[in-house]
Amino acid sequence: MSWHRGIWNRFEQWVELMNAGLRGFARFEHEIGRLNDILCAINLLSWDAWTKMPAAGAVTRGQQIATLSGLAREMATGEAMRDAIEAGLEEAEARGTEEQRRALLLTKTTIETLRRIPEALIVEAAALKPRAHESWIEARARNDFSSFAPLLEETVRIQRAMAHAIGFERHPYDALIGQYEPGMTLQILDGLYARLKDALLPLLDTVFSRPDQARLDILERSYPIEAQKAYATDIAASMGFDFTRGRLDDTVHPFEVSLTRQDVRITGRFHENWLPSGLFAVWHEAGHGIYEQGVLEKFTRSAFTTDIVNLYAMGGTSFGMHESQSRLWENRVGRSQRFWLVHFPALRDAFPEQLADVDAMEFWRAVNAVRPSLIRVEADELTYDLHIILRTEIESALIAGDVEVGDLPSLWNRKIRDFLGLTVPDDARGLLQDVHWSAGMIGSFPTYTLGNVMSAQLFEAAGKLPAVAKGLDSGNYTPLRLWLGEHVHRHGRSRTPDEILREATGSGLDPTAYIDALAEKVRLLA
Amino acid sequence: MSWHRGIWNRFEQWVELMNAGLRGFARFEHEIGRLNDILCAINLLSWDAWTKMPAAGAVTRGQQIATLSGLAREMATGEAMRDAIEAGLEEAEARGTEEQRRALLLTKTTIETLRRIPEALIVEAAALKPRAHESWIEARARNDFSSFAPLLEETVRIQRAMAHAIGFERHPYDALIGQYEPGMTLQILDGLYARLKDALLPLLDTVFSRPDQARLDILERSYPIEAQKAYATDIAASMGFDFTRGRLDDTVHPFEVSLTRQDVRITGRFHENWLPSGLFAVWHEAGHGIYEQGVLEKFTRSAFTTDIVNLYAMGGTSFGMHESQSRLWENRVGRSQRFWLVHFPALRDAFPEQLADVDAMEFWRAVNAVRPSLIRVEADELTYDLHIILRTEIESALIAGDVEVGDLPSLWNRKIRDFLGLTVPDDARGLLQDVHWSAGMIGSFPTYTLGNVMSAQLFEAAGKLPAVAKGLDSGNYTPLRLWLGEHVHRHGRSRTPDEILREATGSGLDPTAYIDALAEKVRLLA
Repeated sequence: MSWHRGIWNRFEQWVELMNAGLRGFARFEHEIGRLNDILCAINLLSWDAWTKMPAAGAVTRGQQIATLSGLAREMATGEAMRDAIEAGLEEAEARGTEEQRRALLLTKTTIETLRRIPEALIVEAAALKPRAHESWIEARARNDFSSFAPLLEETVRIQRAMAHAIGFERHPYDALIGQYEPGMTLQILDGLYARLKDALLPLLDTVFSRPDQARLDILERSYPIEAQKAYATDIAASMGFDFTRGRLDDTVHPFEVSLTRQDVRITGRFHENWLPSGLFAVWHEAGHGIYEQGVLEKFTRSAFTTDIVNLYAMGGTSFGMHESQSRLWENRVGRSQRFWLVHFPALRDAFPEQLADVDAMEFWRAVNAVRPSLIRVEADELTYDLHIILRTEIESALIAGDVEVGDLPSLWNRKIRDFLGLTVPDDARGLLQDVHWSAGMIGSFPTYTLGNVMSAQLFEAAGKLPAVAKGLDSGNYTPLRLWLGEHVHRHGRSRTPDEILREATGSGLDPTAYIDALAEKVRLLA
Repeated sequence: MSWHRGIWNRFEQWVELMNAGLRGFARFEHEIGRLNDILCAINLLSWDAWTKMPAAGAVTRGQQIATLSGLAREMATGEAMRDAIEAGLEEAEARGTEEQRRALLLTKTTIETLRRIPEALIVEAAALKPRAHESWIEARARNDFSSFAPLLEETVRIQRAMAHAIGFERHPYDALIGQYEPGMTLQILDGLYARLKDALLPLLDTVFSRPDQARLDILERSYPIEAQKAYATDIAASMGFDFTRGRLDDTVHPFEVSLTRQDVRITGRFHENWLPSGLFAVWHEAGHGIYEQGVLEKFTRSAFTTDIVNLYAMGGTSFGMHESQSRLWENRVGRSQRFWLVHFPALRDAFPEQLADVDAMEFWRAVNAVRPSLIRVEADELTYDLHIILRTEIESALIAGDVEVGDLPSLWNRKIRDFLGLTVPDDARGLLQDVHWSAGMIGSFPTYTLGNVMSAQLFEAAGKLPAVAKGLDSGNYTPLRLWLGEHVHRHGRSRTPDEILREATGSGLDPTAYIDALAEKVRLLA
């Protein structure tokens, strides 16, 4: 108590200037900075809730997050922000930079979207969330979808109303995807998915026609957690995650969160008897973190690090582009043959007894084993996107009113059989497996596949540089990270995913590189 | 990224209701609850800054705290709060409880005080803080008070203006003390200090006339930190710190902070070659924490856990009463003979080699050694209050304009010689040693001595219960904690320090018990 109250002021390096003193673009920057501060505080309240908070603090923590979220929404949609945008536009149109105009228009457009959602609908959605979440947890524990169904019906009704409030051209689902991936539509996804299915299903046939050579047992030996963490951390640092501007903590579910580029936090979860999940989760989250740490310093507390639709402090331009960075380091780099040729010796040094009878290629083969799984988060690279396609088909049909919640169990189970040849034994391993619907997140699943596709496009483009390719062969990831920094990270939200892709790779969204990478992997696994 | 965004909603167990729907006292409770949420968020931002944040995050963290502090101030002094208080008073006067009226009047009075401080003065103070703090750090490092003097002059000028804005009856210093200790005045302190000096100086003479028997070398042996922490934690738990509603972390400077009674955090710092500082700091902070955890549950997010003057979420009724709880567990309990008779065996079990040649009474004597120190935070119980008296005399004279900043070095050094018989070798070990002035905290020092005095009054009153006394002899601290919970903790800020003291001990502030306790200790040390 008392003592630290004074010393804390060390961190008050900044005086809250009175709005009255600010004019033009500076006034807009001030307002956005304040909004960003609140969103960062919410990020910290959430990070802490998952990593440090005693369980007893959950209810009051929920109230704290709710109050700050309410304030952030008020600030984003309120008069002061609208006036600040007008003041900024006036200056920017007269003598502003292109960047200033972009910041203003991005913010203005997004806030207009936010303001189209009626307050009553937001309150309704907020009130439903905890009820739906509780119901989902119980339903999953009891393997009983029917008890969750009424809550999901309410969720679908509210999300449908959201879609109509936001507005769309062709399909109501577009409005929902757009919250996570600006510019994305179901039509674009349908084309993408058709190409993916055409490629993935034959590749899977090829794999399954061959004897399975993966020695999964070698991953199930006893790997002490501290040694796993040290190994994963070393490599994450070499990938470019800056631990002087970030940290790694333990959590139940790994995630990444940014409190400005100066303080980016990732979490991991290690299992003593299942080696890959801990390692790859760290590199996945490090990929997210490297993105946030790489946003231009001048974009700190700006419109280009503030996701106004989701009221979330984040420098990544979209959920899909963010996922492209995590998947790139996890899969394109971390699951490659050359990666394990470089890094397996250190792994065997860390676990000499456990890996005495294993070589680099056996290990690489084991972490690339193709085994259709009922569970999305356990899926391998070849089947993962089929899980996403299934969810997109179901979600879009629900939002359009083409299927009803009651139809879902049979629909889900049939699609799992069609796509993966598996029989769903119970709802917990079926349509109750993911948290998203219980949280009202309809429309976010496609960003995972978009991340996969973009990761391969970017990786292919970067790999054309001899320095990048050479670095990958020797475990020097600096050239790759610098290329990604230059073409993706630095821009923050100042460019759309499409602009970034076109500038970096010469083309818009295109699954060719991804399909090629998977086909090549299937060839190598033979 | 992405994934956790949905799952976080688990913590949103609470829907932000629209103000329009709330009437009367409920509307007031809602506004205070929101304010408390923001203050808890600030507490977390600060806790994290001192325990987990990468150093690189300091500047943006400062901005986040500043923005939230500004919002909290706006919320406390704004129209919505004023309307809510009026709405509450209307209902409470008609059919409210005594408790409701208290909450309303406490809040109303405090906010009126807050509103009397001109915005310009707050901005000036905020602008000065980081400059003054930087200057103090540099001045201390270079042992050069003169470079800090101009900043201290500005601080005094601003604090003087604060005092006049807040208002006072007799002395401007009263207005400043009142921020930390409602109802306290320099006149009361003068009377208290006179009695303390009359008692302490002869006691010190007695001690110094005898040969010093303390074996301080036994505290300087090598004590591995993890074992220290385990030992201190066990005892903190037995004192009543509830680790299911709190946690202990490492920090440079130990402190306690509350994010509601459900989540109370203490920090410690252990030194391998100096055993007592780590142990006693944990019990000190645990004392603060037990207070916060013991506030009635119904006061969560209420006026009775919100310090509006300091815009600080805290259930303790004043800084002095808070300090009484930390000092009680640290000194009255932790530095007693019977404590070490009970707990020394476990300490020797934890450090068998280091303590092989030491017995309980030798250890007790070592942690009670009286050695006048130049440094307040290193002072023993017999000299500690002289440091506070010195600071109070200087601060009050500065605020009254009776001395100038330029007079301070000689004034300080003379008083240290008069009180402690020591010569100040340099400013770093003299008037530059404490952070408080650089943070603009003038008027807070007296609360440390008030804490000492009240701790002894409460401890004496509790000890009259046979169960409490018997518990102290056997290391069962539950009866003492229950007594403190019943008479002090539960009330939160719903009673003044004076009301609590009178109800619990039968008298107001009175140094007799404290003086008796110190005299008894001197007798035992003979």
